[in-house]
Formats: sequence, structure tokens, C-alpha cells
Amino acid sequence: MSTRIAILGYGNLGRGVELAVSAAPDMELVAVFTRRDPATLSIKSAGIPVVSASDIENWTDKIDVLILCGGSATDLPEQTPKYAKLFNAVDSFDTHARIPEHFANVDASAKAAGKVAVISCGWDPGMFSLARVYSNAILPDGNDYTFWGKGVSQGHSDAIRLIKGVKNAKQYTIPVESALEAVRNGENPELTTRQKHTRECFVVLEDGADAAAVEKEIKEMPNYFADYDTTVHFISEDELLRDHSGMAHGGFVFRSGRTGADKEHKHVIEYSLKLDSNPEFTTSVLIAAARAAFRMAGEGQKGCKTMLDIPPAYLSEKSGEELRAHLL
Amino acid sequence: MSTRIAILGYGNLGRGVELAVSAAPDMELVAVFTRRDPATLSIKSAGIPVVSASDIENWTDKIDVLILCGGSATDLPEQTPKYAKLFNAVDSFDTHARIPEHFANVDASAKAAGKVAVISCGWDPGMFSLARVYSNAILPDGNDYTFWGKGVSQGHSDAIRLIKGVKNAKQYTIPVESALEAVRNGENPELTTRQKHTRECFVVLEDGADAAAVEKEIKEMPNYFADYDTTVHFISEDELLRDHSGMAHGGFVFRSGRTGADKEHKHVIEYSLKLDSNPEFTTSVLIAAARAAFRMAGEGQKGCKTMLDIPPAYLSEKSGEELRAHLL
Repeated sequence: MSTRIAILGYGNLGRGVELAVSAAPDMELVAVFTRRDPATLSIKSAGIPVVSASDIENWTDKIDVLILCGGSATDLPEQTPKYAKLFNAVDSFDTHARIPEHFANVDASAKAAGKVAVISCGWDPGMFSLARVYSNAILPDGNDYTFWGKGVSQGHSDAIRLIKGVKNAKQYTIPVESALEAVRNGENPELTTRQKHTRECFVVLEDGADAAAVEKEIKEMPNYFADYDTTVHFISEDELLRDHSGMAHGGFVFRSGRTGADKEHKHVIEYSLKLDSNPEFTTSVLIAAARAAFRMAGEGQKGCKTMLDIPPAYLSEKSGEELRAHLL
Repeated sequence: MSTRIAILGYGNLGRGVELAVSAAPDMELVAVFTRRDPATLSIKSAGIPVVSASDIENWTDKIDVLILCGGSATDLPEQTPKYAKLFNAVDSFDTHARIPEHFANVDASAKAAGKVAVISCGWDPGMFSLARVYSNAILPDGNDYTFWGKGVSQGHSDAIRLIKGVKNAKQYTIPVESALEAVRNGENPELTTRQKHTRECFVVLEDGADAAAVEKEIKEMPNYFADYDTTVHFISEDELLRDHSGMAHGGFVFRSGRTGADKEHKHVIEYSLKLDSNPEFTTSVLIAAARAAFRMAGEGQKGCKTMLDIPPAYLSEKSGEELRAHLL
């Protein structure tokens, strides 16, 4: 029997989950819930009901796992604890600093209800977290390095858009190639913020705006840009839409460690992602986590989990026998 | 309280476990068991008893996890099922084709005894298996690529040493850089055996041996060399010992997958290892698995497990709270 999946929220992530579920042989999409008027929402899948989020309580016996596709700033801190009282749930909460608090809130709800909720699934947090935890467990004496990009940073793009005279903007975070190489070679460099990433901005100005003033304001913006080598390009809105609408992203996680009686042996573990579509990769992780959540719930587990708590085999649609015979 | 670790077999792996346990804050080495006369064995650690393997049954209440450091050809198929009747156990069984059979034998012993035994820990099988399983679960539509090297292949070195006129030899397996690049770029190449790896041999001849004949015999050896571009260097025994005694190894695991309504988005996941000491890295994985085995046994789990069955957090000496706050 297929695992019955529902989606709450039909933005980039919701559409990605819809695609990923349709590609999974062992899952079916049973409903899309929305806070908008369902009549105004047209989804890709034929024959799947679009339902008001206010009716979700009537669906508790029809859904195995609810995938929460809202944002981390305001949606998920409220939604995941709320819906983990009704359903096994999965989210992509990615505000690293607030994970302990979110975990505690979701854990209380899910434990009380006897449900499993997996939070912070995606690639960072998510696959990058796994890379860090495995490599730290294996090489306790060493250094961690995480690089992001090349890809669009939504937060930095938003910060530019708030500047007076800016009509639209996209900001790319780019790892510094020489820093990657030094880490890859086991040199264990101490890297400043500026030495790890550069920032490249594509900016559309309002009519009559002062380009030099905007460029200065971007480059001197504290936290966001002042500590980086930043390049600013002014382009037309047409160019922005044509050349900078993609959602590619990626990054690198390294652990550079030492073993041996005199710590004479170096080891470098590298995990990297090169993604054409950040949201579609994230949702591919979400549905693998949904598969695991349903299995763990079926075993009688309950409470909040992260990717760190999931036996890897539970993420796969293949049996243990198949995995041991072909992938181990 | 520290987890009490014992070692069976004091070769490269046994010595690596000894080092890794001494570097682990939450573990202590309590004994080294050997099939040799214990009086002939001198170990690095002061004050740790060296005990005959025939006395191991008297140690069942003094050991939390026994780490089996024998070879996969003949030692482990016999030892792991035997000792999983007495102890939680971990091994590095690496004969891929025989894993299902070894799993079944160990599972029967460990289940009957209420013990946990983790088999096939190391990097391949082990960390590379994890890379394959995670990336297949996330990108079900895609291609897998595993490359090994640069590093010494023991099996290929042994095959050369069996040739008449050869005194000693080391064989390096080397991934083809252009193949790595094509995979890394998401080109999904179809690669023949010859296109993936080259083989480089350093050979010491017996006095009076026919170099041309030896080179021909190596290059034409079925399975081992005939399907590869192979280079043969003849060197002196001194040069072999001086330049080719290292135990460096490594490799690359890729998953190149597609998502999207029209499969228009490519994603490349890459996991790679660059290791100065193959045995010390392997044993670092073994002791992380030992930590997990003891935790799983403490929860009442029993039977044979692989890295695919272990929640990643169980491999770490850090608490769930610490991992969520700092590495997630």
C-alpha cells in the first residue's frame, strides 16, 4: 500500500513535493491544503483535492504524513508544533540558531499525540548536517569547513531590495576556489569570512536612482556585505528576469582530520552538492524523510526527529536485503 | 562510564583500533586477544592485557564491544558469527558479493544471543555505502558512479607477486581524471572499465628474470589487468620499500540525478575521501560503529546491523542536544 502524503502550502516547495511524490513508486498524493481560497488554486496533479487548511482536522485518518511547505521565518514555528498533534509531519525549518527551540516545541506536540515529526530536512540543514556529523564522529581530531554556492541567497537579495533606489536584485554567494583547494589539500587553513566566499549582485535601479550611492550602500552594509569582496552589476529588469531567475545552488562540506600515534596521517572527507533546482532537491529530501517518518511511527516511535536520528535505510524505498546486495 | 572495547587480532587494523580508542574520550581498551602466543606479542598500550583468543569466553562480563580485526577472506566469515554469540561485535568484512551470506550467519548468532553485531564497517563498504544509499533515496532517477584511488590494491599487488620472476610488487589503482570531470559536470557518461581507472605497477624482479615477459604477463592478465591501461615500472627492492610502503587510499562516489516535470533539472552529489592511512581511517569507522552498537544493544536491539541501520547520531560521542545545536 502506498504511503499517503499531503502537502500544506503550494509555493516552490509544495510544487516540488508534488513532483517528487509522483516520481516515488511507494507514495501517493492525497490532498493539497492551502490557507488561500482553494477555488483560486490550480495544481499540477489531476484529480487531487485542494482543501482549505481550516478543514485539515477532518483528514486525520486519510493521511500518513503531512509535509509542511511553509517558510521558516513565521510559518513553520507555528505550523509544525500545531500539526504534529494531528499527523506525522516533515518540515524544512532552516533557521539554524532556532533549531533547538523548534525541536522542543515540535517534540512536545508529537510526543503527546504519539506522532513522529522530522524537522529541518533539506540540504543545509539536512544532508550537510549528516556530512558534518558522520565526519566528526569518524575523525574527532580535525577541522570543519562548510562553503555555500554558487547560488542565490534570498536573504542577501532581500537586503539589497530594501535599499532606496533599488527596484529588484539577485545576490549570488560564491565560494573562493583557492580556499576550496587549500582545504581539499588538507592544509587546514584558518579562513576569514572574506577568504571563504565572494558576493556578486545584479541590481535593477529605479528610474533616476544614483548608481554610485546604491553600490556604496550595498558594499558597506554591515553583516551582509561589509566583510566580503562584493561585486555589483547594474542591469535591466529584462536582463534580470532572463538571466537570473534560476534556482541553482550547492556547496561543500569538508572535514580535515588527523590520526596516528603522532597525528602524522591526514584525511580529508568532502561532500558536495551541485543543484540545478534548490527547491526540488530540498523536496526530494523531504519525501525521503516522510518515508522514514512513517516507518518510525509504525514501529511505535514518537516525538521530534531530525535526519541525524533516522537509520539511512529507512529513507529508501528499497528493502534491507536489496540495499545490502546492491548498494552496501 | 567508558565503553569497554576489546580487539581480536593485532595487525594493521588492530593497531589502528588501539590508536582510535585511545583518542576517544568515551572509550577504553580492556584487552587485546590474539591467536598467537600472547607472550610473543608486544602492544603499544601500557598495562593492557594481551590474552589468548582461547580464553575469550572468560571475558563476557568485562567487554562491551569486541572489534574483530581479521581478514575478510577466511577470518571474519568464521569469527564474527562465532563471537557474536558472546559479545556485541563489529567487523570490517569487505567482500561485497558475500555480504548477504555473512549478514545471515551473523544475524542468526547475534539474535539468538541478544547481541548487536555491526558488519562491513569501513569506507567501502561503509562510508561509500552510506553515500550511495542516501543519494539513491533522494534522487531515485539517476546514475551511480564509484571510483577508487589513488591507492594500493592488495589483491592486484598479490596477483603480480604470483608471476614467475617477480620478487615483490605494489599496484596502484588510479581514477581517470577526465572521467571524474565528466561525471562531476552531470554529463552522465557511459564508462567502460578502461575509461574509469588506470593501473600502475611497481615491480621488483628476481635476478635474471625476463622483464619484457613479466610486463606482458601483467598487462594481459584477465580480469586484473587486461581491461585496463596498465603501466609497469621495474624498480629495486630498496626503492619499493622507500617509495611505496605508504597506505594512502581514497575514492569518489557520485550520484547524478534528475528532477522536474520534464526531468529538466540536473543534480550531482559527490562524496570523496583522501586518506593518508587506509587502515587508520577504517578503524576510525569501526570504533564509531562500536559506540553505536553498544547504544543499540542498550536499547534492547539485537541481530546483525550495517552502517545503513544506524541512526547517525549514535556514532557520535556528542549528545543529541549538542549535535542539534552545533552540527545540524
